[in-house]
Amino acid sequence: MSFDEIIDRRDTHCAKWDKMELVYGVPRDSGIAMWVADMDFRPPSVIQEALQRYLDHGVYGYFGDESDYLGAIQWWMQNRHNWTVQPEWIFTTHGLVNGTAMCVDAFTSPGDGVVLMTPVYHAFARVITAADRKVVECELALTDGRYMMDFDAWDAQMTGTEKMLILCSPHNPGGRVWTRDELQGVADFAKRHDLVLVSDEIHHDLVMPGHTHTAMSLIDGVTDRLVMMTATTKTFNIAGCHSGNVIIPDEALRARFAKRMNAMGVSPNSFGLFMATAAYSPEGAAWVDDLVTYLDGNRRLFDDAVNAIPGLASMPLESTYLAWVDFKGTGMSAAEFTKRVQTDAGIAANHGPTFGSGGDTFLRFNIATPRARVEEACKRLTAAFSDLQ
Amino acid sequence: MSFDEIIDRRDTHCAKWDKMELVYGVPRDSGIAMWVADMDFRPPSVIQEALQRYLDHGVYGYFGDESDYLGAIQWWMQNRHNWTVQPEWIFTTHGLVNGTAMCVDAFTSPGDGVVLMTPVYHAFARVITAADRKVVECELALTDGRYMMDFDAWDAQMTGTEKMLILCSPHNPGGRVWTRDELQGVADFAKRHDLVLVSDEIHHDLVMPGHTHTAMSLIDGVTDRLVMMTATTKTFNIAGCHSGNVIIPDEALRARFAKRMNAMGVSPNSFGLFMATAAYSPEGAAWVDDLVTYLDGNRRLFDDAVNAIPGLASMPLESTYLAWVDFKGTGMSAAEFTKRVQTDAGIAANHGPTFGSGGDTFLRFNIATPRARVEEACKRLTAAFSDLQ
Repeated sequence: MSFDEIIDRRDTHCAKWDKMELVYGVPRDSGIAMWVADMDFRPPSVIQEALQRYLDHGVYGYFGDESDYLGAIQWWMQNRHNWTVQPEWIFTTHGLVNGTAMCVDAFTSPGDGVVLMTPVYHAFARVITAADRKVVECELALTDGRYMMDFDAWDAQMTGTEKMLILCSPHNPGGRVWTRDELQGVADFAKRHDLVLVSDEIHHDLVMPGHTHTAMSLIDGVTDRLVMMTATTKTFNIAGCHSGNVIIPDEALRARFAKRMNAMGVSPNSFGLFMATAAYSPEGAAWVDDLVTYLDGNRRLFDDAVNAIPGLASMPLESTYLAWVDFKGTGMSAAEFTKRVQTDAGIAANHGPTFGSGGDTFLRFNIATPRARVEEACKRLTAAFSDLQ
Repeated sequence: MSFDEIIDRRDTHCAKWDKMELVYGVPRDSGIAMWVADMDFRPPSVIQEALQRYLDHGVYGYFGDESDYLGAIQWWMQNRHNWTVQPEWIFTTHGLVNGTAMCVDAFTSPGDGVVLMTPVYHAFARVITAADRKVVECELALTDGRYMMDFDAWDAQMTGTEKMLILCSPHNPGGRVWTRDELQGVADFAKRHDLVLVSDEIHHDLVMPGHTHTAMSLIDGVTDRLVMMTATTKTFNIAGCHSGNVIIPDEALRARFAKRMNAMGVSPNSFGLFMATAAYSPEGAAWVDDLVTYLDGNRRLFDDAVNAIPGLASMPLESTYLAWVDFKGTGMSAAEFTKRVQTDAGIAANHGPTFGSGGDTFLRFNIATPRARVEEACKRLTAAFSDLQ
């Protein structure tokens, strides 16, 4: 297994590579896809082998007996996140967009406000709005090029109609790994305004050396309002299986969620279950350690090149593989810097405004691709902005 | 590919074989699992090959470009069901329990009545009740050992609070393939009582020789209230992928359903998409033809043996692989005939009352298993009721 292997994903029904021309006008034959948040790597062989065993057996009927699956989740949370999970706390949703939507559905009513710390993962706002709830944008403060919580400002924004807060921890985009103090601040904020706290920790395994992720479940005084969301999909690059976990320690919240799970007829697909069971293992853990080392190399390379371009600033990634680049210093319009990236450099990157307030001058670049491709992207960006030198 | 091959599904996280001891007390080492509605066969090689190609590529990121998938569905409905489907009518849910639940959610409100023709597939009532809607049981008439519609009786039952009818076509359990006239009657009934008509046609491909399934979408005057549900999962024995289609020709109904799909963050997993695209093909069709011939042989064998036991009556299966056996003629209590099947014969079969009113004297036997196993089951049943000879 080498992360350096270039795997051609074109013509494989791959959203990232096969749809970048349609979405961004970046040509499929020469473009570099750095948008959709999946990686251009194969998962660890422990997952490949589990899938191959399933195929060799070849009967794909109804899955039964989830004890191995639930045990693997428990093992992972205990060993990688120091978090003791009980099997009955665990729900399996169809990925965490569905998980988020189920939380909005279970814990809020139409018209209620749901608080987001923007800029943040765009699908949150999409499901909130589609469910006729109100997105309440609390903008992160940009201090010395890093995102910071701004509780004083957010306290002043609250109106009493807010019922839920969705935290992204680590944060996407920007990659902040929130400190224990910051997380305690979030817990206190949720308590102050009586909000259900949904902590989306999908990036919790992809944390750069020197940083430590703390599960929100380890923070004091928050369990009675806490919903945790985790998944194998981002960590192991298996988003196609659309499987995620909503983990709820509190019995009353759990009963409300379970009722809606039953009412929506949500039950997991077997491919996701087999993959997760294989992934959450010592073999999976060793692979993640190697992956993070590789991603750390990629982000250093990328940040160095981008930050060398006058006016561009790549936020120091503490987690995730989603580099968040501010073009504000160039003084260019969004149309201009976007055109340079898409048309001149031939790179498909997510547009900042997609992520809500505070994203206007940004583009998001996915660096989870073989290093040679990151190098090529850096070369192209340098050339596309060479007049600034 | 031979349907005669005995594939040991024990210890494969298979609900049907691995959970029968827990659920029915039928021993794993010697019992025969004839309950859960999946088959003990591998799917056609065209599906196996598609999965193998996906594994060989080995990157399981986000799926993009559904045109092949939607085209395959269109091809199948046109060529196998004489039904012209537009791609924009098609939604992909996480199987049809989720599909049913999404319909209940999108088209009814808490407290509304949802009409079922019982006995019928048990998950319908489960999701209706979980969603705080009311199950309205309209019992099928048992005439000469076959289920018949009873519109006069059902008209008298309606109170005006019913908002939806879920039709199972072909019917499970019992296997009726409804005639055009009967379907027209259902359409008229739905119109008379202003019900959204959800037609679950998951068994539409498994129709015995001499019978012809008619898609509800081909019935006159019903399109503006019709929701069709179809899937590859029952036809090709790939229920593990949890993928199904809700197909809505009417624009207004479609808009309401789409809004709830977005609000619930429902999007399909890639395994189901690749499998369906491969399945809905000429190769898949040829396999289904062979499968139906084999199942027809199984049900003749099973029916002959069961009907030779005094007091037992196996309903003539026009579709499905789910034999529906009435023990009424034995005069035994349900406890007694169930004990003989489970304990004496060592067979796990679904209990009739699970399916609602009218099911009390029945057990449901899944005959989609190699013929040798059906023969063994017949032998055991004959022995377990030998005192009646």
